[in-house]
Amino acid sequence: MSNPVVVDAMGGDHGPAETVGGAVAARREHGVPVVLVGRAGEVRGELARHDAVGEIDVVHAEEIVPMDEPGARAAALGASSLRVGCELVGQGAASALVSAGSTGAIVSCALRGVGRAPAVLRPALAIALPSAAGGATVLVDAGATSDPTPEMIAQFALLGVSYAQLVLGVPDPSVGLLSIGSEPGKGNRLTRRAEELLPALPLRFHGNVEGHDVLAGTVDVIVTDGFTGNIVLKNVEGSVRAVLTLMARSGVAEPEGLREVARRYDPETHGGAALLGLSGTVVVAHGSSRAATIARACVVARDLADGGVTARVGDHFAAEPVR
Amino acid sequence: MSNPVVVDAMGGDHGPAETVGGAVAARREHGVPVVLVGRAGEVRGELARHDAVGEIDVVHAEEIVPMDEPGARAAALGASSLRVGCELVGQGAASALVSAGSTGAIVSCALRGVGRAPAVLRPALAIALPSAAGGATVLVDAGATSDPTPEMIAQFALLGVSYAQLVLGVPDPSVGLLSIGSEPGKGNRLTRRAEELLPALPLRFHGNVEGHDVLAGTVDVIVTDGFTGNIVLKNVEGSVRAVLTLMARSGVAEPEGLREVARRYDPETHGGAALLGLSGTVVVAHGSSRAATIARACVVARDLADGGVTARVGDHFAAEPVR
Repeated sequence: MSNPVVVDAMGGDHGPAETVGGAVAARREHGVPVVLVGRAGEVRGELARHDAVGEIDVVHAEEIVPMDEPGARAAALGASSLRVGCELVGQGAASALVSAGSTGAIVSCALRGVGRAPAVLRPALAIALPSAAGGATVLVDAGATSDPTPEMIAQFALLGVSYAQLVLGVPDPSVGLLSIGSEPGKGNRLTRRAEELLPALPLRFHGNVEGHDVLAGTVDVIVTDGFTGNIVLKNVEGSVRAVLTLMARSGVAEPEGLREVARRYDPETHGGAALLGLSGTVVVAHGSSRAATIARACVVARDLADGGVTARVGDHFAAEPVR
Repeated sequence: MSNPVVVDAMGGDHGPAETVGGAVAARREHGVPVVLVGRAGEVRGELARHDAVGEIDVVHAEEIVPMDEPGARAAALGASSLRVGCELVGQGAASALVSAGSTGAIVSCALRGVGRAPAVLRPALAIALPSAAGGATVLVDAGATSDPTPEMIAQFALLGVSYAQLVLGVPDPSVGLLSIGSEPGKGNRLTRRAEELLPALPLRFHGNVEGHDVLAGTVDVIVTDGFTGNIVLKNVEGSVRAVLTLMARSGVAEPEGLREVARRYDPETHGGAALLGLSGTVVVAHGSSRAATIARACVVARDLADGGVTARVGDHFAAEPVR
């Protein structure tokens, strides 16, 4: 049996009330070995509600990282559930971490506790967005690294390809570089340099794509810097919400139909966003995640851990010091 | 009577078939003095259809800038309607230009033919996006300057404030800086430096806003670099389209209701996007604009020309050479 997935029991808006149920469901329904990290008393109380005391190991961690804690401060905090969880992955005692904590805190703690994969310059967050046409497009980096170099963007593309293969099951994913025109050479300084690097990589480079391609299913993977990616991700959520608000107010749609579309673009249903490029697997669940979402994130975490997501990067970039 | 607004008759997907009707409507319905620039024979033919030969002056220009022409090549082209139109504004013979040509071509021709306003470092494109709550938010820069400095972003904010006052009639617009977290200090290198400059300016700085604030009506003006702004603008259009496609396919909404929402976010109904920071006024209509949209763009152009949109920038930044 492979090493367990460690679930940060204290992360997220709901804490153990949802994360523990998620861990129990991951084990019972999906056969994922799990361990919970957090305040042992609270966590065991929740396990008892699911009749699962003794079924899932609990590692005690006294501190809780608040959802609004800046990343650097979160990493400096003592033995938080997030930090201890990352260290379990870093030490090889766990195969992956699932946390519904804040992305910034997870990135900081994971860099310290898990560490970067040998050849990777910076981690990137990958998230699968559903397309109007069916299927999904992986957006990478959705917010881990705000000021990447062109070389980092090229690595993000390789990480995104691995994610699309392992999580979405796309054998040979196409990759688009997010820019302001589809023609070659369109973009800012960063994308123009990244555009020169991408054709040399072992991936199917489609060329530049634009903002309207994000949900159009134009490509399987859209690569961008973490600043643009995070704004785009939140802009999708806000735009969907704005349209549904207008529709609900005007009464032109049935409420159940609106709820169905809202669910499709709810961050909860994206599955887990994966923080890629580390020496271990870290899956970021949305802060508002309920138990079923945590369980799904555990499945994604196991699949990513088994799949060796950073192998491609290691094959094509020599290890270099952190810039 | 003030100087006329010059309409680029050959710009846009439909050319004179729509632009000439738009110019006629601007004059007859809104009292905007106009002049048309383009192939005189074709333009007069269209004027005849509206019984308007002799009512509107025509300036001949032989060349047409193709919609997919890169900006720099468009400016190098001979006497195109776009270039001649810009020169009429630059010479003071026209108060403003309206074109439905490609943004890149308009920016290049306007920089050459109209020129930058004295203190302005770079132009910015401002566009009003309708909010779910009612009202609108000005997005600036929506795609004129891909790699601005922090000082340019600060100027874009002042230009956006003038646009919100003159076009939307908001007396004291609030300004948000588009970033990846609402807390101070969140962002990339560029936004963190811009965030330090904005509080010193004569505008109501709200602080950082995020991707989901673009359509939420959080602030009156959202300022960003032209790369991010262009991606966000197209991402809004694409996200709205994706939701409407899903709704139409699932049959949960009445088609007329869907059309109403689509119209609201159709680029055609935004009114004109304004290219701000030039020595004259330039309004960019969407390439797909029909006559009514061209007419509305002429009204916006006249109002902006009368209002002196760059005065605030001139008051607070000393003129410097182009960087």
